[in-house]
Amino acid sequence: MAASSVAALQDVATQLRIDSVASTSRAGSGHPTTCLSAADIMAVLFFSEMRFDPKNPQNPDNDRFVLSKGHAAPILYAAWAEAGLFPREQLMELRTFESDLEGHPTPRLNFVDVATGSLGQGICAAIGIALNARRIGSAYRTYVLLGDGEIAEGSVWEAADAASHYKLDNLCAIVDANALGQSQPTEFGHELERIAARWAAFGWKALVVDGHDISDIRKGLDTARATSGQPTVLVARTVKGKGLSAIAGKEGWHGKALKSGEETDKAIKELEGQFTRTDPKPSIPGPRGASKSETPADYGKLPAPNYKKGDLVATREAWGTALATVGKADSRIVGLDADVKNSTFSDRFEKVASDRFFEMFIAEQVMVGAAMGFAARGAIPFPSTFACFLYRAADFIRMAGISTLNMKLTGSHAGVSIGEDGPSQMALEDLAMMRAIPNAVVLYPCDAVSTERLVAEMAQHKGLAYMRTSRPKTPVTYEPGDTFPIGGSKVLRQSADDKAMVVGAGITVFEALKAYDILKAEGIPIRVVDAYSVQPIDAATLKEGAKAVKGRVLTVEDHYSAGGLGDAVAEALASEGATVERLAVREIPRSGEPDELVDKFGISARHIVEAVKAKS
Amino acid sequence: MAASSVAALQDVATQLRIDSVASTSRAGSGHPTTCLSAADIMAVLFFSEMRFDPKNPQNPDNDRFVLSKGHAAPILYAAWAEAGLFPREQLMELRTFESDLEGHPTPRLNFVDVATGSLGQGICAAIGIALNARRIGSAYRTYVLLGDGEIAEGSVWEAADAASHYKLDNLCAIVDANALGQSQPTEFGHELERIAARWAAFGWKALVVDGHDISDIRKGLDTARATSGQPTVLVARTVKGKGLSAIAGKEGWHGKALKSGEETDKAIKELEGQFTRTDPKPSIPGPRGASKSETPADYGKLPAPNYKKGDLVATREAWGTALATVGKADSRIVGLDADVKNSTFSDRFEKVASDRFFEMFIAEQVMVGAAMGFAARGAIPFPSTFACFLYRAADFIRMAGISTLNMKLTGSHAGVSIGEDGPSQMALEDLAMMRAIPNAVVLYPCDAVSTERLVAEMAQHKGLAYMRTSRPKTPVTYEPGDTFPIGGSKVLRQSADDKAMVVGAGITVFEALKAYDILKAEGIPIRVVDAYSVQPIDAATLKEGAKAVKGRVLTVEDHYSAGGLGDAVAEALASEGATVERLAVREIPRSGEPDELVDKFGISARHIVEAVKAKS
Repeated sequence: MAASSVAALQDVATQLRIDSVASTSRAGSGHPTTCLSAADIMAVLFFSEMRFDPKNPQNPDNDRFVLSKGHAAPILYAAWAEAGLFPREQLMELRTFESDLEGHPTPRLNFVDVATGSLGQGICAAIGIALNARRIGSAYRTYVLLGDGEIAEGSVWEAADAASHYKLDNLCAIVDANALGQSQPTEFGHELERIAARWAAFGWKALVVDGHDISDIRKGLDTARATSGQPTVLVARTVKGKGLSAIAGKEGWHGKALKSGEETDKAIKELEGQFTRTDPKPSIPGPRGASKSETPADYGKLPAPNYKKGDLVATREAWGTALATVGKADSRIVGLDADVKNSTFSDRFEKVASDRFFEMFIAEQVMVGAAMGFAARGAIPFPSTFACFLYRAADFIRMAGISTLNMKLTGSHAGVSIGEDGPSQMALEDLAMMRAIPNAVVLYPCDAVSTERLVAEMAQHKGLAYMRTSRPKTPVTYEPGDTFPIGGSKVLRQSADDKAMVVGAGITVFEALKAYDILKAEGIPIRVVDAYSVQPIDAATLKEGAKAVKGRVLTVEDHYSAGGLGDAVAEALASEGATVERLAVREIPRSGEPDELVDKFGISARHIVEAVKAKS
Repeated sequence: MAASSVAALQDVATQLRIDSVASTSRAGSGHPTTCLSAADIMAVLFFSEMRFDPKNPQNPDNDRFVLSKGHAAPILYAAWAEAGLFPREQLMELRTFESDLEGHPTPRLNFVDVATGSLGQGICAAIGIALNARRIGSAYRTYVLLGDGEIAEGSVWEAADAASHYKLDNLCAIVDANALGQSQPTEFGHELERIAARWAAFGWKALVVDGHDISDIRKGLDTARATSGQPTVLVARTVKGKGLSAIAGKEGWHGKALKSGEETDKAIKELEGQFTRTDPKPSIPGPRGASKSETPADYGKLPAPNYKKGDLVATREAWGTALATVGKADSRIVGLDADVKNSTFSDRFEKVASDRFFEMFIAEQVMVGAAMGFAARGAIPFPSTFACFLYRAADFIRMAGISTLNMKLTGSHAGVSIGEDGPSQMALEDLAMMRAIPNAVVLYPCDAVSTERLVAEMAQHKGLAYMRTSRPKTPVTYEPGDTFPIGGSKVLRQSADDKAMVVGAGITVFEALKAYDILKAEGIPIRVVDAYSVQPIDAATLKEGAKAVKGRVLTVEDHYSAGGLGDAVAEALASEGATVERLAVREIPRSGEPDELVDKFGISARHIVEAVKAKS
């Protein structure tokens, strides 16, 4: 592997330092000092260790690199420029609106798998990327660079645990231990054995290396490559601001660009003095070999749902059955769960595709993070847990949105309708969380048929999608042949004389239907809409309905009022002059029987009836 | 300490087992087997180890117990019944709507500090509870019981790190290692040395004990009490379902109540056979001593804000100044930050009250979790970080809502107006997250005066509150004497002929004012409202305004459209027949200059002007 000489790699490191300082100075902001500490590591990784095609960052067999400490973005960009992907001059566009070289890396750049900048996430994605090598039969290795401040994030230890559990010897982490955080020294300073001991206790081969000694870094990476059955971490002793005598190892320089002009010029000159220029530029070895190619499944050939109208089936169970069906047909589909597979019913998928199912134990952040990594490498991951516990990974989901990843989340046991387990287990803010991601698809089916159809829809949709499933059994409402396009809705009841339109989703569809029967008996016809696609919402149907009922619209949802179905409907009807009244959960709920809670918290048929009467 | 005999404690454990089985059987749901594994530990803790007043669970000097594995709630309730706080018969009301003995513990019960049931949170709260003992000068000790499946949660390791960093020798964790998760065996089974090694690497004294051997548990607790300078963890080997021969150690019994009738009767009989009835019931020793009492600060005596109209001050900086002011006056106030104190300006508080400031490093979950513990024990914690990184602790904030804790979150650097750092650093969903908590106060001031006034308001408010601050400097807009009650708003511009009402908050207030000037010059007067209290929102003023402008309402916010200011205003006006148009960020943003981004993403004065013209 060591075709590049030490001197040549030192020169690369110097060039990366110069580029990092120059580009941040030009931008007037950024984190040069955290780039300087990582420069030697980056030089060795990109120009001695990793095997990849620098002209095609998406080659499926390229070794992968994840910059978990995303604020060192300028040196990542410099490395790819140095590798020849784009001209060095473009680095000077750093952080400008017109450039994709943003303040922190995002997949707008073809060499970035996942957006980083929220610390502790890149390494979770790296777990998925490393696992994906097994899925596609590739020999690519995955490298991830973390900061030492970053390892305070609990998600790092979720990742550490998962990597050792799955014996990811194709994964190598490097901790750039420059001993300075943003606001003060890091917890450990340069007591690196303490850091290494933690990784070792989590099952990693852990080495302390000198992060400014090319040979020592190389030796560490050699060890990593030679290690089997466990992942390796190099804890690299570095100096923040290394290379610049005025700054190196000093506090108060985090996230500060050098001033353009004299300060920067002097710094560049000092760095230029560090060139040896004795050896030829290193060359990058190509990827190891060809992974197996994938043929996408033919979703048109999936069987129609096999349910009989009126049968009682929980949507969570229908989801599990559906995932098994599409998962059998599509080898890109991957399942992940957090020790609730027998409640979400992801175990049905595990039964038909155990090699593509990953138990992530009770660690939702790495579950979602690994799914992000899978999605970035061509898989279609379906991470699942109770909807309330997806909230544990909210920041990961936010970053997955920024990364526009092809990930399919599922949250079961939504709302007060779970009953006795109480509020800690009730998701009442998941629709808000998912709707807050631009372009995320948010689905909330009410019955088994629509669930099965929508699982296939979300698998085929390119982008982030979420399905909310329910704990109680609900009657099969639709015919096997019914279709449920994303962005659609179903008008379940309507007449020419409707006095109001009631929009529900999930379990409240049935409350609305009950209310319909009661009101019909009293001579008050209403329109009932199943808004199974909460985002995008079916604005056309809602507007038509709102017009027909003279603007008397009622929404009802097993969710808090903020950010859920009611807000979605209200915004769709914002210009229609409709009055959108929202029935939603409006206080912290408590334990009780499902039906009791649906009623006590204001979203039952009784409340719909009352609200419709008050309106009409 | 060992006044209670082994036999007496065994009998207590048997009683707790019986109560756990009986109450879950009666409820028809719950987690009896996870109670059975913990019974001996609970018996020793409550009836041999902990010093507390069983008649007054809120005595400030009581030893504290946190059930981090919240699904073992029935045995917690049984322990307090056994201690004499309430009659044992009440246990049979478990999980019913009328009872506070919910499926998972919540502070509706006076012996519960924080709601648990989302795993990995109780131990974070325990950090704050243990730190609080130092704040009030109490000798109370804090005990926390975790499950072995639970320790996969990264937040557990954030807590482990924080506890050893702060040398919390008044904290003792017990891991109930029953080796079975919900859906399958735990990762480690009974290889408990592997678990202990992780805790040891994180700086804890770590012991493996037999969790069904009263003497061994006691010995472990003796060691914990004798250990100084570091926290202690007992990794307790237990059997899930211990005591019931048909169930003990068997898979498939998680979260399942025994069937009423024969199955339960037989189980109870088997347990009753385990009574020794040889020794008298153990007595509980009272708390160790008196903490110092606190006199609440006189907020009326705080000086008025000291800013000159037109001065440029970022609200984040004004927040730091204000927190220092109220923090100096009120000894209950505690500051916590996640390595960004020099950006949030919480370092101003640290300067005046360093003994009440806690650097939690880059670990937002334990930062918020510790704050929850502080709040539960009478402190007024102000955890702060970038608003986007509070999202990392979303699930903690959700549980803090369920716990109705007196916690004051602050998120800085909100929105696209941060500029060049890019989308990973931009909070655009924090208002949605906070509004999704019923009764949470959500504040978003636009200038230094309102910020300072609102910091004092939130400190005095009883309950969860959130302040969103901004990175850019904004002009001081208000007079030092102006007041800003929670739930209020300020009408900054109005006339009898207003053609529209523009509602902004934070930085968009100034975009609205710029739009006002432009429109005024064109003869189009508008009403401008500063909705600094996003929740509760000033519905009365909004309704009055909407009426005055004939329903032409425009909201503008540096936040995604879902769940933010626009939705809050729209819901407040739902019955008014107003058309509420929302200007908000509607796509994933990118790096750029702050003003450029505010314009490119559709929330600048130019867009307000266009929207008003289109409306009028």
